Parts: sequence; structure tokens; C-alpha cells
Amino acid sequence: MPIAVDHEERRAEVVAVAARLIAQSGMEAVSVRDIAEAAGCSTAIVSHYFHNKRELLLLTYNATIEHATLRAQTALAAADGHPKAYLAEIMPLDEERWTEWRIWLQFWAKAAADPEIAEIQKNCVTRTRGNIQDILEDEQRKGRIARDVDCALQARRLLTSIIGMAVQVMYDPKDWTVKRQNAFIDAELDAFYSREPERRRSAHRIAAE
Amino acid sequence: MPIAVDHEERRAEVVAVAARLIAQSGMEAVSVRDIAEAAGCSTAIVSHYFHNKRELLLLTYNATIEHATLRAQTALAAADGHPKAYLAEIMPLDEERWTEWRIWLQFWAKAAADPEIAEIQKNCVTRTRGNIQDILEDEQRKGRIARDVDCALQARRLLTSIIGMAVQVMYDPKDWTVKRQNAFIDAELDAFYSREPERRRSAHRIAAE
Repeated sequence: MPIAVDHEERRAEVVAVAARLIAQSGMEAVSVRDIAEAAGCSTAIVSHYFHNKRELLLLTYNATIEHATLRAQTALAAADGHPKAYLAEIMPLDEERWTEWRIWLQFWAKAAADPEIAEIQKNCVTRTRGNIQDILEDEQRKGRIARDVDCALQARRLLTSIIGMAVQVMYDPKDWTVKRQNAFIDAELDAFYSREPERRRSAHRIAAE
Repeated sequence: MPIAVDHEERRAEVVAVAARLIAQSGMEAVSVRDIAEAAGCSTAIVSHYFHNKRELLLLTYNATIEHATLRAQTALAAADGHPKAYLAEIMPLDEERWTEWRIWLQFWAKAAADPEIAEIQKNCVTRTRGNIQDILEDEQRKGRIARDVDCALQARRLLTSIIGMAVQVMYDPKDWTVKRQNAFIDAELDAFYSREPERRRSAHRIAAE
């Protein structure tokens, strides 16, 4: 079914263009026309794929979340389940991840006045927190995290730190360097991780790369 | 000079109305006309006080920061310098503080695409972090915090936790109850505070009131 594939590919392309423009200029400043122009197609074609700007924005938001989550899960698998590998993928450490955070923060600012966005946002954070908790509990089962550590609480602390850090990175990236971000989260992990210097060193190396 | 006083009072009134509307509906959805109507005056009068909507928004942003900082400093003085008293005033624990966070988050979302807002935001966070650091260093001088605690780092951790928490409170207040918020920040403080049960208990009581 080549037509269906083209349709999905074209939609994904438009969403990627929308993500870039929204991160650059802000959600309000970007029009469907801007997105169509940057994607090299007519507004009629964009309107064919998406009912309205709101639908396009929500799809863009969801697409960045899915993309980041998939990237984090792939990194986790490659790092033998160490949580830092997952966390590093949702920390604003490079241009790709900055773009994602810029988009997320714009949606979050809207959540207070928009119950639908608040609900999507709530589900996204609950899911991510659950993923981190699962990772910590796996590590605990493997004996890498002490048995008395409250993984639910630590997952909450880690995600809260990353969100608080990301907000600050957006307007003060010189203060929150990649090195400082890594040191900040490494210290949070070290506070409850079992002492295994070799393993910790390798986790830090992964994050610094 | 009654006229000058009236002028300042009227400006402050309009800013307070703007803050409430922005927190309710979002910065983009609120017009100068809406603000004038809610303040019970004409758009001409609002335009007399503020050059344009941007100036009014920036004043509203700064006014909420000044207001929260003053409230936090007053609470600190009343609590014999315990940091929790200060921190509680910038945590989203009630409607007044929710309103402030809703406004701040909307500005923060704009910071990436607006260097002037980014600069204001950066200065605000740097100042608040400095205030918290000063409070911790005072406590350290009084022997209430151990001498080997890095107050600059702990101030950074505390403010990052509060920001990360506030973002989540905005869309999931049922998860982040007042009790959970207090427990979360109390645990952060307890991690480096000297053991003084009587003093800690009284600090917790202040925060819960």
C-alpha cells in the first residue's frame, strides 16, 4: 500500500517541521501557512493531513514524546539497564533534546487553562515516572540498588530534578552546562545506588559521550 | 501628592487584575481590553498607564516576583531564619502561589524565543538561588547546618526541586498535594540539616499552617 505509507511519511515530515518551527519561534507565532511553506507544500495539503492547528500542535507534542521515549528505551537497552542511560535521553543535553523541551514547556504553560492538554501532560509524566520506577526496580532486583530504597520516591525525585533543570536550561544554558547537568543527576543517583565504582564509572562515561 | 499616589495605586490595581486574568486564561487569550474591563476602567486609561500589552505583561511578571519575594522574606524573618519558611512561600501550596506559578511558567515558555524575557528570567532565578544560599549560609554560621555542606549546591538543588515540582503541580495537583510537596522539600532539607528535632518540628508546623 504505497499511498498509505506516503501519507504517514508526509504527516511525519510535516510534524517534524512543525516541531522545529514551534521550538524556534513559539507556538503562537507559528501558523499552518508557515509550517506548509517550511515543509515545501501548500496549506491545502497540510489541511488535508490535519483538521486544524490544534490537532497539528497536539500531534507534534505527542510525536516528540514518543520519539524521546523510544530513544531513551533504546539507550537503556544498550547500557544494560542503567537508569542514567535512560535519563540522559530526556535531559536537555543537545540541540535535539533542547528542541523537545522547548516544545514541552510551551504545552505545559498552557495546561492550566486547557484541561485536554493538562490530561495529556499528566499521562505523559505519569508514564515517564513509571518507566523510571520500573528501571530502578529492575536494578534493585539485580542487587545494584539496595533493597530498602523506595524506587517510587526516587523515580519521582529524579524526574522532578530533570524537569526543574530543563526549565532553567532553556533560559540559562551557560550556567547549566552539559557537565553540570550530568554531575547533578549523577549525584542524585549516587545518593541511593549501591557502591560499584566500575559500574558507576561506565555509566558516567555513557552520559558524557 | 495624592495624584501620584493614585497613579501608582491604579497601576498596581491594573497589574493585579492582569495577573489574575493571565493565570486563568493564558497570556495570549487575554487582551488589554479584557484587563481594562475587569479593572472597571476604559482601555484608554490602561493605555495611559502602559505603553502596550508587552509592557503590561512584563510589569505583571515582575510584580508577581517582587510580591512573592517580599512575602518569603517576611516569613523567613518570622521563622528565625529557617529556610523552609522562605521556600514554602515560593512553593505552589495555595491559590495565590498557584496564580504566581501559572504566570511564571507562561513567561518561561516564551524565554527560548525571546532574549529579553530569558534575561529577566535568568536574573530572577539567579537572585532567588542567591537568597536561598544566603539563608543556608546564615544557618551554617549559626551552627544549624554542618560546616562541610556546600550551601551553593544545596540552594541549587532546592530551587530546582521546587521548579520541577511546581511544573507538575500545574497539571496534576491531585498527585502533588500540599502534604506531598511539604514532605518532598522537608526531606531535601533533612538530608543536610543538623539534627535538631525540636527545631525541625517547629519548621514543619510553620509550613503546614
